[in-house]
Amino acid sequence: MKVLGISGSLRRDSHNTGLLRAASELLPPAAGLVVYDGLGELPPFSEDAERDAPEPVVDLKAAIAEADAVLFATPEYNHSIPGQLKNAIDWVSRPVLDNPLSGKPVAVVGASTGSFGAVWAQADLRRVLGALHARVIDEELPVAYAGEAFSADGSLAEAEIADRLEGILTGLVRAAEPALVAA
Amino acid sequence: MKVLGISGSLRRDSHNTGLLRAASELLPPAAGLVVYDGLGELPPFSEDAERDAPEPVVDLKAAIAEADAVLFATPEYNHSIPGQLKNAIDWVSRPVLDNPLSGKPVAVVGASTGSFGAVWAQADLRRVLGALHARVIDEELPVAYAGEAFSADGSLAEAEIADRLEGILTGLVRAAEPALVAA
Repeated sequence: MKVLGISGSLRRDSHNTGLLRAASELLPPAAGLVVYDGLGELPPFSEDAERDAPEPVVDLKAAIAEADAVLFATPEYNHSIPGQLKNAIDWVSRPVLDNPLSGKPVAVVGASTGSFGAVWAQADLRRVLGALHARVIDEELPVAYAGEAFSADGSLAEAEIADRLEGILTGLVRAAEPALVAA
Repeated sequence: MKVLGISGSLRRDSHNTGLLRAASELLPPAAGLVVYDGLGELPPFSEDAERDAPEPVVDLKAAIAEADAVLFATPEYNHSIPGQLKNAIDWVSRPVLDNPLSGKPVAVVGASTGSFGAVWAQADLRRVLGALHARVIDEELPVAYAGEAFSADGSLAEAEIADRLEGILTGLVRAAEPALVAA
């Protein structure tokens, strides 16, 4: 089964993209994670263009449609979702009858360099994903002090955080392919 | 005094851009409103570029710095702020010491074609603007059924809605230039 990982940060050394890489090592063996790398190419959404979407949007919608589940890792900008990540979701959600996130199992995690671990961005993102009828795993993973959260090999330094992430991933895989995960 | 109007929609016949035009007619005579038209040119925010921001970002920050107050008119996408409008705010808010919205009087209004008038997007936007230390007028203007909300001359069809907008504008002008508005 395929999980698509979408990072909300375009920073080259993004902690959230790193969090997706750490997640890919914690998935059950039968599941694989591919990190989406087209976020920076999506133009601003306009309703005028939604029925003739530009190629990067068509590609993102196809990648989501082909995935069995989606894992979002989001930083927090001004106490909410990064604008470009929300812009991606706005594109994907339209037109209403061609929304590949509808019914899709999704989970949200997040990292920040401060002490809150992007909890508000995660909460807003779960709410937005619920509004467009994704099947949202109702858990959060606030990775705080992200500058010190990863070991040199990219794994999560704290066992407790790694265990929580593994639990979220198990829930996500179970929602998509119940047979892959022991009850 | 100068009010900068920022519409969250890039749609050519946007109701929210229309709402800004209607607002410009309801301002006190000594205040003028200019509608910002560069939203579609802002690239996706990346922290890597925040200290060497692209020209459209520099222009937006200058326009906000020169304005005495800012009026946002936002549609609602997936129960929240349009991604590209949030992206604009993310750019403007960084770096922290060069954020022209800090301390700036701002108000938020919104229109939607449904029955709720973009109330959630307005609430989220006020919260985000408060997080970056703007002086947020604590009122909302939900313009519902936007397709029928405007007269042929662009003014608001319902006197009650127009009165409420005028009240919000008075509050905004008072926050920026108390001398311009009778107490």
